[in-house]
Amino acid sequence: KWEENLVEGSGRNKIVQLTVDGVIAQNAGFTSDFNSVDFISQLDQAMKDENVKAVVIRVNSPGGEVVASDEIHNKIMEMKKRGNPVIVSMGAVAASGGYYISAPADRIFANPATLTGSLGVIFSIPNYQKTADWLGYKENVIKSGQYKDIGNPLREMTEGERAVFQKLVDESYQQFVNIISNGRQIPKEQVLKIADGRVYSGQQAKELNLIDEFGSLEDATRYAIKKAGLEKAKVVKYEPKFSFGSILSGK
Amino acid sequence: KWEENLVEGSGRNKIVQLTVDGVIAQNAGFTSDFNSVDFISQLDQAMKDENVKAVVIRVNSPGGEVVASDEIHNKIMEMKKRGNPVIVSMGAVAASGGYYISAPADRIFANPATLTGSLGVIFSIPNYQKTADWLGYKENVIKSGQYKDIGNPLREMTEGERAVFQKLVDESYQQFVNIISNGRQIPKEQVLKIADGRVYSGQQAKELNLIDEFGSLEDATRYAIKKAGLEKAKVVKYEPKFSFGSILSGK
Amino acid sequence: KWEENLVEGSGRNKIVQLTVDGVIAQNAGFTSDFNSVDFISQLDQAMKDENVKAVVIRVNSPGGEVVASDEIHNKIMEMKKRGNPVIVSMGAVAASGGYYISAPADRIFANPATLTGSLGVIFSIPNYQKTADWLGYKENVIKSGQYKDIGNPLREMTEGERAVFQKLVDESYQQFVNIISNGRQIPKEQVLKIADGRVYSGQQAKELNLIDEFGSLEDATRYAIKKAGLEKAKVVKYEPKFSFGSILSGK
Amino acid sequence: KWEENLVEGSGRNKIVQLTVDGVIAQNAGFTSDFNSVDFISQLDQAMKDENVKAVVIRVNSPGGEVVASDEIHNKIMEMKKRGNPVIVSMGAVAASGGYYISAPADRIFANPATLTGSLGVIFSIPNYQKTADWLGYKENVIKSGQYKDIGNPLREMTEGERAVFQKLVDESYQQFVNIISNGRQIPKEQVLKIADGRVYSGQQAKELNLIDEFGSLEDATRYAIKKAGLEKAKVVKYEPKFSFGSILSGK
Amino acid sequence: KWEENLVEGSGRNKIVQLTVDGVIAQNAGFTSDFNSVDFISQLDQAMKDENVKAVVIRVNSPGGEVVASDEIHNKIMEMKKRGNPVIVSMGAVAASGGYYISAPADRIFANPATLTGSLGVIFSIPNYQKTADWLGYKENVIKSGQYKDIGNPLREMTEGERAVFQKLVDESYQQFVNIISNGRQIPKEQVLKIADGRVYSGQQAKELNLIDEFGSLEDATRYAIKKAGLEKAKVVKYEPKFSFGSILSGK
Amino acid sequence: KWEENLVEGSGRNKIVQLTVDGVIAQNAGFTSDFNSVDFISQLDQAMKDENVKAVVIRVNSPGGEVVASDEIHNKIMEMKKRGNPVIVSMGAVAASGGYYISAPADRIFANPATLTGSLGVIFSIPNYQKTADWLGYKENVIKSGQYKDIGNPLREMTEGERAVFQKLVDESYQQFVNIISNGRQIPKEQVLKIADGRVYSGQQAKELNLIDEFGSLEDATRYAIKKAGLEKAKVVKYEPKFSFGSILSGK
Amino acid sequence: KWEENLVEGSGRNKIVQLTVDGVIAQNAGFTSDFNSVDFISQLDQAMKDENVKAVVIRVNSPGGEVVASDEIHNKIMEMKKRGNPVIVSMGAVAASGGYYISAPADRIFANPATLTGSLGVIFSIPNYQKTADWLGYKENVIKSGQYKDIGNPLREMTEGERAVFQKLVDESYQQFVNIISNGRQIPKEQVLKIADGRVYSGQQAKELNLIDEFGSLEDATRYAIKKAGLEKAKVVKYEPKFSFGSILSGK
Amino acid sequence: KWEENLVEGSGRNKIVQLTVDGVIAQNAGFTSDFNSVDFISQLDQAMKDENVKAVVIRVNSPGGEVVASDEIHNKIMEMKKRGNPVIVSMGAVAASGGYYISAPADRIFANPATLTGSLGVIFSIPNYQKTADWLGYKENVIKSGQYKDIGNPLREMTEGERAVFQKLVDESYQQFVNIISNGRQIPKEQVLKIADGRVYSGQQAKELNLIDEFGSLEDATRYAIKKAGLEKAKVVKYEPKFSFGSILSGK
Repeated sequence: KWEENLVEGSGRNKIVQLTVDGVIAQNAGFTSDFNSVDFISQLDQAMKDENVKAVVIRVNSPGGEVVASDEIHNKIMEMKKRGNPVIVSMGAVAASGGYYISAPADRIFANPATLTGSLGVIFSIPNYQKTADWLGYKENVIKSGQYKDIGNPLREMTEGERAVFQKLVDESYQQFVNIISNGRQIPKEQVLKIADGRVYSGQQAKELNLIDEFGSLEDATRYAIKKAGLEKAKVVKYEPKFSFGSILSGK
Repeated sequence: KWEENLVEGSGRNKIVQLTVDGVIAQNAGFTSDFNSVDFISQLDQAMKDENVKAVVIRVNSPGGEVVASDEIHNKIMEMKKRGNPVIVSMGAVAASGGYYISAPADRIFANPATLTGSLGVIFSIPNYQKTADWLGYKENVIKSGQYKDIGNPLREMTEGERAVFQKLVDESYQQFVNIISNGRQIPKEQVLKIADGRVYSGQQAKELNLIDEFGSLEDATRYAIKKAGLEKAKVVKYEPKFSFGSILSGK
Repeated sequence: KWEENLVEGSGRNKIVQLTVDGVIAQNAGFTSDFNSVDFISQLDQAMKDENVKAVVIRVNSPGGEVVASDEIHNKIMEMKKRGNPVIVSMGAVAASGGYYISAPADRIFANPATLTGSLGVIFSIPNYQKTADWLGYKENVIKSGQYKDIGNPLREMTEGERAVFQKLVDESYQQFVNIISNGRQIPKEQVLKIADGRVYSGQQAKELNLIDEFGSLEDATRYAIKKAGLEKAKVVKYEPKFSFGSILSGK
Repeated sequence: KWEENLVEGSGRNKIVQLTVDGVIAQNAGFTSDFNSVDFISQLDQAMKDENVKAVVIRVNSPGGEVVASDEIHNKIMEMKKRGNPVIVSMGAVAASGGYYISAPADRIFANPATLTGSLGVIFSIPNYQKTADWLGYKENVIKSGQYKDIGNPLREMTEGERAVFQKLVDESYQQFVNIISNGRQIPKEQVLKIADGRVYSGQQAKELNLIDEFGSLEDATRYAIKKAGLEKAKVVKYEPKFSFGSILSGK
Repeated sequence: KWEENLVEGSGRNKIVQLTVDGVIAQNAGFTSDFNSVDFISQLDQAMKDENVKAVVIRVNSPGGEVVASDEIHNKIMEMKKRGNPVIVSMGAVAASGGYYISAPADRIFANPATLTGSLGVIFSIPNYQKTADWLGYKENVIKSGQYKDIGNPLREMTEGERAVFQKLVDESYQQFVNIISNGRQIPKEQVLKIADGRVYSGQQAKELNLIDEFGSLEDATRYAIKKAGLEKAKVVKYEPKFSFGSILSGK
Repeated sequence: KWEENLVEGSGRNKIVQLTVDGVIAQNAGFTSDFNSVDFISQLDQAMKDENVKAVVIRVNSPGGEVVASDEIHNKIMEMKKRGNPVIVSMGAVAASGGYYISAPADRIFANPATLTGSLGVIFSIPNYQKTADWLGYKENVIKSGQYKDIGNPLREMTEGERAVFQKLVDESYQQFVNIISNGRQIPKEQVLKIADGRVYSGQQAKELNLIDEFGSLEDATRYAIKKAGLEKAKVVKYEPKFSFGSILSGK
Repeated sequence: KWEENLVEGSGRNKIVQLTVDGVIAQNAGFTSDFNSVDFISQLDQAMKDENVKAVVIRVNSPGGEVVASDEIHNKIMEMKKRGNPVIVSMGAVAASGGYYISAPADRIFANPATLTGSLGVIFSIPNYQKTADWLGYKENVIKSGQYKDIGNPLREMTEGERAVFQKLVDESYQQFVNIISNGRQIPKEQVLKIADGRVYSGQQAKELNLIDEFGSLEDATRYAIKKAGLEKAKVVKYEPKFSFGSILSGK
Repeated sequence: KWEENLVEGSGRNKIVQLTVDGVIAQNAGFTSDFNSVDFISQLDQAMKDENVKAVVIRVNSPGGEVVASDEIHNKIMEMKKRGNPVIVSMGAVAASGGYYISAPADRIFANPATLTGSLGVIFSIPNYQKTADWLGYKENVIKSGQYKDIGNPLREMTEGERAVFQKLVDESYQQFVNIISNGRQIPKEQVLKIADGRVYSGQQAKELNLIDEFGSLEDATRYAIKKAGLEKAKVVKYEPKFSFGSILSGK
């Protein structure tokens, strides 16, 4: 499904460079968001190719949808279980969900100025009540249950509703903490202190053991070759197969 | 009418993966909404194909039109009666009508962070009276009966009108409750407590028995193969047959 | 003029499925409204085709122009007189004019959640007097008779004018009531109570005898075959014949 | 100049169906208005074709320009003098100028809900004085005579100017009244009572003898065949001859 | 330069129908205004064609530029001096400059409802002083003479400036009066009474001798044939010669 | 460079008709302004063509850039020195710079209603100080000399700046006066009285000797033939040579 | 790289006419600004062509970027050192940077009405503090040094910042003064008096010795031929070589 | 990957001219920003080409992303270690990140008016609290940790948050200072004084030893040839290989 393009090197053994660039979403549609479904299918292809000895993922993302991030994370875990090293190279930003998917990597490279961290979960529920009042707009809501219009932006949120949302956030947060603790081998109590949502530079992240080493994509690739027990390897990228038919059918 | 595309596997026995993505509507027109008529025709084709042994539906929808959801639901019921297992795999969101159509499934898979619930029915009737006053716009309404301009956004809703709408909501709610109770084998009194419109995470939904298991589309597909009593199967998707003629005639 | 597309079945005897989708208008132009002239021509073609044994009309419309609805209604009456059963299948909405054209059907199917009713007639005459005052806009009207600028949106409506319009509404309402009474065999006094403009669910409509049965388009089609005294039939749709010439000449 | 398209029937004798749809104007340009020049040329072609035995005009128009309506009226009169019956079938609206051109018809058909009437003449002269004051816009007018800026929207209309316009309206009104009186054989005093600008339904118009009969275009066409003393006839429409050249030259 | 298109008739002798439609301007550019240069070239072509025995001009114009109207007028005078009858047929409007060019015609036809008159000259000088004050916009004007910024819309007009403009209007008015007096053979004192800028209907204009007769373009053409001393003639229109080259070169 | 198009006549001797239409500018770019560089190159071509015996310039311009007008003027002077008569025919407007370039002509023709005059020079320097204050916009200006931000629209003009600009205007005005005095042979004291910026009609201009004669472009051309001492001549226009290459290269 | 187009003349010896039209910038992108890089490459080509004996530069520019102007100036100096005369012909405007690049010319021609001068340097730093306050917009600035947000438009400029900018302006001004003093051989004290930013007409500039002579591009070209010690020469322009490839590759 | 285009010269030894033009970013997308990934790949190609003896980089950039600038910087360091001289030629602006990447060059050329400096690091965090209040917009934030909504533009920044950001800025600043100190061999204490964010002219920068020499791109290239120990060399640029395929596949 994905076509291999040579980056450098040669031989039978392959290292694949993949890219997570932008806001993570399951279905990016016509936005510039990053499509998790395509990415998982790239991981799948690499996993099924016996000549692929390791995968390097360039992460340049401020995060995104929780479910999409978790599905990527799970696929990476599966890959590791099969014995393929996974190396992460962080770009300018690898925060929140961008870190979530990096956590299980065998080794994480970053620039000292990389922005990472922002560990945790957040919901922002918009509220236009005052705007609507001002415009003279109103909605008569006829509903079957107390919470059926939860998140209604035309009235103030109740305490009960806030509790419903906070519970959802807390649950996701526990999962996030576990994934960091397991992926990075940091005790959970330690993670809870770090994961208060603040942003870290690559330098700070190194001190906190959130990353392993300073280095570029090139450095990460060299490490992957070594880690895979190879001396040299063919480094490749995946690109979509292009055909006229795919344009015409919108696929 | 729908063309099969291979996802993986081989053999005569087929598992079909279908997708409900976006707001459910009977006639989505040029919006990005999800077209229920097309979806029902996909279910029909699967049902009439003797080699199809089970269907997996990926649901990623916040709900939509009541009638369209009900017609999908009825088609799924018909399929089950013919003995075809139907498995649901929930994506990021499967709430309200998205849950309604999932309820009859043989097994429901979700991510712990999936947003589901929002069980119940809601009408929002806009009201611009103050805006119109402010703009100096008025309408002289000449009508044949007291309720002929029910829902008129240029005046306040009367108590009588509110009662008319509440009755419609209550009726639909009873139907929703029955469908959950039957589909999930949860006593009706229990459903009435759960179905107050609030949103649940996949994790909470599992505790409430609204879903069966955590897992991805892949997990759901594996389960479907087993459930259909098979060891291996050809997994396929349906895609529209494309021809130039269809563009030119706007069909 | 209309091309037949096979839906299912075979044989010489035909059942035609027609669709009334959207606001009913005589000349829909470039809007998305539903064109009554085309629809009448479809009814005509079905009526003149000896192999057509029954017609099923899918109605999904909130109503529209009175004259256009009446002309459709008259054509359906003509068809019934020739002995062709006419079955209606209501979608999400079949209200006002959408019900008016359904009334003469041999049998009406609907979903319990279908919105129907809204029986009656309404005129909304816009009035911008205050807006115009605010913008400083005025019109000097020179007219030949007292009512020549009836409906003038730049001044308040007089009592005399309101009476002129109410009389028009009342006349149309009587016609509407008669059509329901005759079509559904409900005594006129009964219709007058029901037809106060309120909206009914399919379920309520069934209790009021405004519809006959719950069911989908498929159910309605099966009923039509039986009603036409057939065991099996070819179910077809009508679609416009397409040619390049028709694009170029704008026809 | 106009191409004949068959509607139904056969034989040498022809009935032509013509259409007046929209606001009547001499030169509709790129608007959706109805072009009187084209329509007169259709009447001319019908008049010069010896096989045309009668003309049926479908009128669906709220009126329009006085001169354009009068020129259509005169052409219809000429046609009648040559002995060709002219039958009018009214659609949803046939008011003001739409009635003016219908008046001389041998027989007028309408739907009971057709909106007709609005008999009389009206001038609306816009006035932006207050808007201009508000925007701070002014015009210094240098003129050669007292009335040279009659209708100037930046100042109030004077009594003298109002008298000039009222005189124009009154003249046109007399002509309108005469045409109704002659066309419908209603005494002039009677017409003066009816023609106060109010809107009539088809039903009311029938009582006032403004129309002859309820019926559709089909009914009107059947009547025309009979009136022309025929048993059967070929019913045709006129459509523009289409050629690529006409697009390129803008004609 | 102009291509002849047959309207009706045959034979060697020709009557040309020309059209003045819209606001008269020397160079209409991309506006919809009427181009006087093209029209004069049509008159020239007719004048130089020996077979052209008379010209009929359809005037449908509210007036326009003074110099452009005068140049058309002069060309018509030249044509008359060569002995070619010139007949005018007025459409919905033939006012101000539209009348100016009609005045020398051998005979003027109009509809009783034609709007004509508006005889005289007017200048409207916009003034935005208050708007500019409000927006805080100002211009520092450095000028070489007292009147160099005459008509400056950012300050009030002075009495001296008003006198300069009134003198220009009065001069043009005298010329207009002379042209009517000569063209229509009405004593100058009489014209001065009529030409106060007011609008006349065709009916009023006939009483004032501003037009000769009621009638359509067809009537005017018949008169022209007779006036030219002919029994029958070929009636033609002029249309631009069309070629692809003319599009590409913008000519 | 310029292609000759025949207007009328024949023979070896040529009269060229040139046109100055719109605001005069050196580089009109994509505006509709009149390009002086092209015009000068047309004058050059005429001057170098031995068969050209006289030039007629149609001027329809309210003026424009001073330098561009002066360069045209100088070229016309050069042409006259070589002995070629130059005749001007004024259209609707030939004011300010439009008169400046006409002044040296051997003879000036105009319509009595031509707007001319506006003799003199003007600078308008916009000032947005109050607007900027209102919007809260400010600029910190760091400059090397007192007058480096002369004309700054965000502060009031100083007296010193006004003096700088007035001196520029006065210089240009002297040049303008000289050119009129020399071109029209009017004593300088006389010109100073006339050239106060006011607008003249063609009629007034004739009394002031600013033009010579009333007449059209045709009259001017006839005069040019006679003035060149010819009996007959070929009258031509210049038009740009057109080629596809010129479109593609943007030239 | 640049293609020669013949202006006039013939022979082996060449005079090149170059043009500086608009605001001077290094990289004009898609604006209409003048691209200095292209211009320098034209000077280079002329300098390397042994047959080019002199260059005439038409300057019509109000100035622009300092570095771009200086690089043009340096290239012109280099050309002069190689012995090629450089002549400047000023158009409507040759001010500020437009004068800076003209200063080293062997001779400067201008029109008496050319706007020149504006000698000096200016920085305008926008400030939106009040606008932002009004909109409620604020920025929290975290910076590493006192001046890191110098020029921040959301707060008032400090005295220290003003001093930093004034120093930059003063340095550039000294360079400007030196270039005028050297190029025009005017004592530096004299230049300091003239270069206060004010605008001069060509006439004033001649008195101040900022230009040498009145004359057009033609006059300048004749002078260049003489100055190069030639009797006749081929006068050419440079134009970009055009190819389809250059469009497609965006070069 | 990059195609060589000849600038001048010949022979086997090559000098490459590269360009950094605009805001530095890792992924410029459809903006006009400068793409660091492409630039690094150009440096790579030059480094791997044995015939390339030196690289000249034209820097015209106000800075940009920190990580992208650092990655360019590191690549330049790598190149120098391999023994290839790297020469920088500054254009109009080479400030902040534009200086950061220039610091390691063997020699830096600039114009005296080049704007450089702006040494240091800055974060601007927008805040719309007042705007949102005014519009009546609010967000209910449900978060898992104190800092999870750090930088939230809808509320004021806390002291804790400011400290988090200041720490990030300070870290980056130290790195910047080290790079200048090492690249330019200026003692760190000295750099700390200079690097307060202020802007320097090229002239000031020379005094502070931030640049080496005044000169153009040409001068820098000549220096590079000499520095590489060559007498002559082929000077080339890199340009993207263009093919239709690359357009269609969006690469």
